[in-house]
Amino acid sequence: MADLTVFSGHAHNEFAEEMCSLLDVPLSPSRLSRFSNDCLQVQLRANCRQRHVFIVQPLVPPVQENLMELLMMVDAARGASAASVTVVMPHYAYARSDKKDAPRISIGGRLVADLIHTAGATRVLTMALHASQVHGFFSMPVDHLTALPAIAQHFRHRDLSNTIVVSPDFGNAKDAGHFARLLGVGMAAGSKQRISDDKVIINEIVGDVAGKDVIVLDDEIATAGSIIELVGAIRRYNVKSVSVACTHGLFTGPAVERLNARTDIQEIVSTNTVPAPDGLNNLTVVSVAPLFAEAVRRIGSGESVSSLFSSEETYG
Amino acid sequence: MADLTVFSGHAHNEFAEEMCSLLDVPLSPSRLSRFSNDCLQVQLRANCRQRHVFIVQPLVPPVQENLMELLMMVDAARGASAASVTVVMPHYAYARSDKKDAPRISIGGRLVADLIHTAGATRVLTMALHASQVHGFFSMPVDHLTALPAIAQHFRHRDLSNTIVVSPDFGNAKDAGHFARLLGVGMAAGSKQRISDDKVIINEIVGDVAGKDVIVLDDEIATAGSIIELVGAIRRYNVKSVSVACTHGLFTGPAVERLNARTDIQEIVSTNTVPAPDGLNNLTVVSVAPLFAEAVRRIGSGESVSSLFSSEETYG
Amino acid sequence: MADLTVFSGHAHNEFAEEMCSLLDVPLSPSRLSRFSNDCLQVQLRANCRQRHVFIVQPLVPPVQENLMELLMMVDAARGASAASVTVVMPHYAYARSDKKDAPRISIGGRLVADLIHTAGATRVLTMALHASQVHGFFSMPVDHLTALPAIAQHFRHRDLSNTIVVSPDFGNAKDAGHFARLLGVGMAAGSKQRISDDKVIINEIVGDVAGKDVIVLDDEIATAGSIIELVGAIRRYNVKSVSVACTHGLFTGPAVERLNARTDIQEIVSTNTVPAPDGLNNLTVVSVAPLFAEAVRRIGSGESVSSLFSSEETYG
Amino acid sequence: MADLTVFSGHAHNEFAEEMCSLLDVPLSPSRLSRFSNDCLQVQLRANCRQRHVFIVQPLVPPVQENLMELLMMVDAARGASAASVTVVMPHYAYARSDKKDAPRISIGGRLVADLIHTAGATRVLTMALHASQVHGFFSMPVDHLTALPAIAQHFRHRDLSNTIVVSPDFGNAKDAGHFARLLGVGMAAGSKQRISDDKVIINEIVGDVAGKDVIVLDDEIATAGSIIELVGAIRRYNVKSVSVACTHGLFTGPAVERLNARTDIQEIVSTNTVPAPDGLNNLTVVSVAPLFAEAVRRIGSGESVSSLFSSEETYG
Amino acid sequence: MADLTVFSGHAHNEFAEEMCSLLDVPLSPSRLSRFSNDCLQVQLRANCRQRHVFIVQPLVPPVQENLMELLMMVDAARGASAASVTVVMPHYAYARSDKKDAPRISIGGRLVADLIHTAGATRVLTMALHASQVHGFFSMPVDHLTALPAIAQHFRHRDLSNTIVVSPDFGNAKDAGHFARLLGVGMAAGSKQRISDDKVIINEIVGDVAGKDVIVLDDEIATAGSIIELVGAIRRYNVKSVSVACTHGLFTGPAVERLNARTDIQEIVSTNTVPAPDGLNNLTVVSVAPLFAEAVRRIGSGESVSSLFSSEETYG
Amino acid sequence: MADLTVFSGHAHNEFAEEMCSLLDVPLSPSRLSRFSNDCLQVQLRANCRQRHVFIVQPLVPPVQENLMELLMMVDAARGASAASVTVVMPHYAYARSDKKDAPRISIGGRLVADLIHTAGATRVLTMALHASQVHGFFSMPVDHLTALPAIAQHFRHRDLSNTIVVSPDFGNAKDAGHFARLLGVGMAAGSKQRISDDKVIINEIVGDVAGKDVIVLDDEIATAGSIIELVGAIRRYNVKSVSVACTHGLFTGPAVERLNARTDIQEIVSTNTVPAPDGLNNLTVVSVAPLFAEAVRRIGSGESVSSLFSSEETYG
Repeated sequence: MADLTVFSGHAHNEFAEEMCSLLDVPLSPSRLSRFSNDCLQVQLRANCRQRHVFIVQPLVPPVQENLMELLMMVDAARGASAASVTVVMPHYAYARSDKKDAPRISIGGRLVADLIHTAGATRVLTMALHASQVHGFFSMPVDHLTALPAIAQHFRHRDLSNTIVVSPDFGNAKDAGHFARLLGVGMAAGSKQRISDDKVIINEIVGDVAGKDVIVLDDEIATAGSIIELVGAIRRYNVKSVSVACTHGLFTGPAVERLNARTDIQEIVSTNTVPAPDGLNNLTVVSVAPLFAEAVRRIGSGESVSSLFSSEETYG
Repeated sequence: MADLTVFSGHAHNEFAEEMCSLLDVPLSPSRLSRFSNDCLQVQLRANCRQRHVFIVQPLVPPVQENLMELLMMVDAARGASAASVTVVMPHYAYARSDKKDAPRISIGGRLVADLIHTAGATRVLTMALHASQVHGFFSMPVDHLTALPAIAQHFRHRDLSNTIVVSPDFGNAKDAGHFARLLGVGMAAGSKQRISDDKVIINEIVGDVAGKDVIVLDDEIATAGSIIELVGAIRRYNVKSVSVACTHGLFTGPAVERLNARTDIQEIVSTNTVPAPDGLNNLTVVSVAPLFAEAVRRIGSGESVSSLFSSEETYG
Repeated sequence: MADLTVFSGHAHNEFAEEMCSLLDVPLSPSRLSRFSNDCLQVQLRANCRQRHVFIVQPLVPPVQENLMELLMMVDAARGASAASVTVVMPHYAYARSDKKDAPRISIGGRLVADLIHTAGATRVLTMALHASQVHGFFSMPVDHLTALPAIAQHFRHRDLSNTIVVSPDFGNAKDAGHFARLLGVGMAAGSKQRISDDKVIINEIVGDVAGKDVIVLDDEIATAGSIIELVGAIRRYNVKSVSVACTHGLFTGPAVERLNARTDIQEIVSTNTVPAPDGLNNLTVVSVAPLFAEAVRRIGSGESVSSLFSSEETYG
Repeated sequence: MADLTVFSGHAHNEFAEEMCSLLDVPLSPSRLSRFSNDCLQVQLRANCRQRHVFIVQPLVPPVQENLMELLMMVDAARGASAASVTVVMPHYAYARSDKKDAPRISIGGRLVADLIHTAGATRVLTMALHASQVHGFFSMPVDHLTALPAIAQHFRHRDLSNTIVVSPDFGNAKDAGHFARLLGVGMAAGSKQRISDDKVIINEIVGDVAGKDVIVLDDEIATAGSIIELVGAIRRYNVKSVSVACTHGLFTGPAVERLNARTDIQEIVSTNTVPAPDGLNNLTVVSVAPLFAEAVRRIGSGESVSSLFSSEETYG
Repeated sequence: MADLTVFSGHAHNEFAEEMCSLLDVPLSPSRLSRFSNDCLQVQLRANCRQRHVFIVQPLVPPVQENLMELLMMVDAARGASAASVTVVMPHYAYARSDKKDAPRISIGGRLVADLIHTAGATRVLTMALHASQVHGFFSMPVDHLTALPAIAQHFRHRDLSNTIVVSPDFGNAKDAGHFARLLGVGMAAGSKQRISDDKVIINEIVGDVAGKDVIVLDDEIATAGSIIELVGAIRRYNVKSVSVACTHGLFTGPAVERLNARTDIQEIVSTNTVPAPDGLNNLTVVSVAPLFAEAVRRIGSGESVSSLFSSEETYG
Repeated sequence: MADLTVFSGHAHNEFAEEMCSLLDVPLSPSRLSRFSNDCLQVQLRANCRQRHVFIVQPLVPPVQENLMELLMMVDAARGASAASVTVVMPHYAYARSDKKDAPRISIGGRLVADLIHTAGATRVLTMALHASQVHGFFSMPVDHLTALPAIAQHFRHRDLSNTIVVSPDFGNAKDAGHFARLLGVGMAAGSKQRISDDKVIINEIVGDVAGKDVIVLDDEIATAGSIIELVGAIRRYNVKSVSVACTHGLFTGPAVERLNARTDIQEIVSTNTVPAPDGLNNLTVVSVAPLFAEAVRRIGSGESVSSLFSSEETYG
């Protein structure tokens, strides 16, 4: 693996460090400057020539700053004659902007994918895109990892005999179903009802949750509004315990306060695709850096990455 | 001019308003939203179909936010079947990043030009690019305006019989020469000397400034460090008065404090390509909105724009 | 509208004829030939120069033949100096191939969008894409119509006081919700459960359907397997009547036989985005040609198309 | 040659098998599915990452189906991070559509070349393009093989002392001349005369064929109309025997019946660029799989391919 | 036709003047400069904004100089916001480089077509490409005119009762056949035989030329070697007279001397797609400027150009 | 370095020979032909498949011929399946055309960079671009070398204790400053004054040159007009001696005569980026072929090239 070179932007340096440590390659230094007119400049401080360059940067707040840093790093690597430039983007925030549900808006998920392509990226390595269709927005190969096996591995240490997985809604129930199968347990789902344009209530849980140890699974938690609503709904069914799990634990705005106020949540499990928040009680962070490290290793050595997230091979 | 539609981003709405007022076209509304994960979304709230759309947005701080808003507006206009999308960018901050003076950096001026192209822009209307070569970074037509005649017009109301124009250095003396000819006065220039990698001194003024009314001309003032240094140097020549003029008056960081401390500066003249700072004494803002309005009008009606800034035709 | 020229491929000439008749423009002739080696050739038999060309072709079986005919027509129009080439594709079959749910497959929805772009199309006018994200697969403006108001208009002639709309599953319940609001009635949804990789059962209807007049709504009906399963599940709830509605009524393979065997379906309503099948009892076809004609008219005259399908403006 | 991976579409699996056997590499499996709405899906079932992928697919009937399968395989290989994707297309049927001989038609040979490029192919390996200019339609490297030495090798086992090669017309006589030189014999050509737009007669053979063993050479035989006409014309010159040879033996429509009816044709020689027809008497198939295998081997190892078909080096 | 602007490069100003005069539009001025380091610079000296710009430049010697001038004019027009840029190239010399008949050469006809596209051209108007496939090398619309009707018109003033058209070889006999039909006379063709790699003789004329008034027709005459050889061969058949006609009369190198030495050629007819040579006896130049003017007029007004060269409509 | 293949165009074969000799790789042969219609054709006469191809060609007069030869060589290498194509262009003449200082001109430096990209180049290796911004005109990696250390090395053999470096003007004084630091001496600069639009005089030398050994440094000398003017100005300061140094010694037009007439110039030092002129007295040519050879070697082996011209490593 002599010809891999890994750089990290400023969004989540810790993740890059862990990944590199597992790969046993150094995290090469880069330098970010800000000019007096607020423009950024990035310098990659290790040779890129004919090397497979990986740039680690999830799109977390401040998103626009982190995106521009990423684009400049990609452009610098291309300009320095890298053989390939893989964007390692554990969280692709703009994936939520995936359709034109109002006139004359930008489909940000496609636009940003095109910007990354323009800057010179040749491959993207990411995890748990908000909608699986977003894969098709990129004009380059995408390796799309899932955190579900890693999260499931965490819960296997529990007694799961009385456990059920609950999806916040039916629309995204596929992931919850996959997760339940990984744990060998049943599943249920909330039935969201839209009261008005700006208010959603969950008035029913489809599936038998009474007396169960519930694990609520969602792909991303931002302000935690939906999760709080769902946990409230679940509580009305006299469940035994409630835990919450997600891939992208952003916990922005009022999320920490809201979740800390809900003392009946036994455990909150998130991965480290984004930096962990300060002060969130009961938070357990499951690292997906080993998964990214293995994917990077396989990309570097030309081995299949798809087998890495195929349930057949991993859990057969 | 029925088929022009003008939108403004949030960087400098006042400029867009003034320009539209002069054009006698409405400034069409747009809406900027920020999602809980810090991603932006823009909605253009007027019909763009088969229309010539102009989007006004100088790249001023916060540059990355303003750039992303601009890109999304351009993408939205294209997706809404605009006949053409002209980016009206009175100040292109990334123009300063115009060369690769260190290994493995991005030439930001070219990268951002490519991003704007990718988003769907078909033309750029801008003013006083930091280096004239930056024009060649864009893969689309660029109409490149100059503020010098407008600034000169301001000074013509003075008695100019004892006036001399001073350029901070010889490298950019071409603009100062042009400006001096517009005023019908002589010029001089500072001789910058680089003491070390991070320290510049101006140890000499080439040209006879003693007893003169000096107008220092620069293209952009950010922290005002060079200007303060230059004014100090000029003062040693026993000049009669000192004024300062520039196109892009950013006045970032310590600039306002520094310039206000220098009470011997008679007047500071800037244009409104960027929003005016708060609290800068002796500042006169010369509007270039009429120039942009006229350029937009000519673009819309297919008249020559180059004649607009050709000194021969305008001041012959 | 003198500069519109409309051609039709062989997929659904009747639709193009109706649309042109409503627009009061002639359907211009084209000729499809097949060489002895099975290659196709298309000739557009009307002047395209500087004209806004519209090519009508839904992707219905034989899909590959119809796609190639479409691509050649687009290429011919571009080569003949058309000012713009709009693909009018009432049904985009490849939209179902919208994600990479197995290793080393093609995301056909993106690939075919790119092929259409390569052939020279400058805009797409389509209806009811299988997933709204597919809009983002196209590298050109897309006008994405909905048939729901037209279908709702059909049902308004009934007594709707006892009616409920049922979605086959929660994942696509958004359209059903929109449809229910258009009719001013309530909604319910089937709860799909995946027993194994190749078997789905609907074991529950969430929402109170007992004694109701049910309208099942789906976006596309191909072999009708899911619909038959759903109608069976609904029947167990002692409903008063069952009707079925969809946008794209392909009715391929065993669909006609299956649906005719289900004599308790009161009415099957589909639009004419694809040709109607032979021999399907109780089928009512609602024409969306007026909607497409109006969209083409607005595209031609530069009026807003989005207002055409905005519920606020159309049904406010 | 560890990093070559070869897949075959469904057009001519036998050819791919033979080629792989000669290369001593496995033919990797792929799976073609057809959805209920007639859309195709392809899965490549072997790792492509960083490998040189070759996809074997001549464009034979059903051409549109085979083309779409090819495009999806190419797209899938690219999306799976193949280092390169070479389309091995022994017969490129759309090469016949190489000019715009009527207004507003598509030049299919260029359009399909662009589609293949868009899908992600990086190189084409083909044989005997209908016109040599078609090479220039591809925006990627093309290795263009000739079957003439292989066909000539077949005839060398005969007594050639009384043999003459006859071209159906002067326009394509260059290949026949090359072939005659390979055999060390003379050549003649038919003089085609176009009686009307849809009728061609060959009223004369230029060159002395009386009493000779004639080998008629053409690049492609589809319905065999021209060949039958030519053989009739030749017969009038009292020749001793007539054989027919071609590269692409499609034998579509009435070809088999027509040729079998012509019992005075001693032998029909074709290569296996396309699958052999059923029931054609006197057909001898010369395999060009060894030539393609050698070309693939050289492409894989970076050796010159041009020397493979240079007459100087091969037959010097 | 107010929005047409026509410029001419230095290759054939006279042609552009004649075309503009017929169109009744001014030929707008441009200025070509050569820097001391031999680089060129071009300035278009009329407004291009939103105008349909036509740049007239056949690729005649010095070809590389004329090509670069053309590319710079196209680039300048694009940069000046032209609505479209049509290259009017009566003679496309690089069309002769249309195939890869030796290893590792450039297909110049495709390369130069791509260069013209890169410079910003949006359409090409040309005449009598050496091979009709070259049309497919351009990634933009091509209007491909023919001079045959104009040349035929010239000969109609003669008594044609004893006339026959002769093609130098069978490969290009299609044009000669078309020309013969326009004159209502018969045709014949030379039978070229390649003695060795560098020597061609014409040893036979197929068709009855004895006692006839022969018109030899070729697309291009450069050094006139083939024509001299052909005329010699024809003479052996005791013909009554010989005339020569071609579209592109380059007459380079020894052509004038050779043709003047052949005093038995009654008339040499060429068009003015390229400048006429000095000192060629018996030369008659037929102007195709009216044809180009009419094509430009139709392009400008959106009328069909194909009908201009369709034999059915023009000579029906 | 087995997989490097180097070709040279006809602009400066001697340079390519020297570079190859230093690299110990053969200079592979190519053949340039000119057709009778003045079109060029190039054949690369060594295998390019999967090889890193380098094509050596400075843009020297005849520039257009040399550029076209370069473009055809690049295209031929790409078409022959080269792994990469690096243009080794020691002098990029079109860099002087770097801005739009008049309406409706082409920015030649950008246009030609795009043409080189279109032809298929993947990297450029060049030296001393006229303006450093020109780097950003290329849409591919550029390795931009400097000759200053090599020229400085030449002067180190002199006694430098009384030496001063003089820049012809302040605008380009940065290079002179760098050069002076390399020699450990001081610097001065001419103060250019523009008398009118077409006349420049140097009326002053800023810095103390009296009694000094002066080395005038410029990047390029074409007609030598500025240098002659500067030397005259310097002479007025009673200097001890004057030498002249430059990177690109074109010496076109009257340059040799002018410089030979100026017998008081002690030595003229140039590099061999362009062929040396005939008959220039006192000319010393410093070879930069070793620098290019080392850069090519590093590109081939994936080592850093930037360290090659980084002052830290070269003069640390």
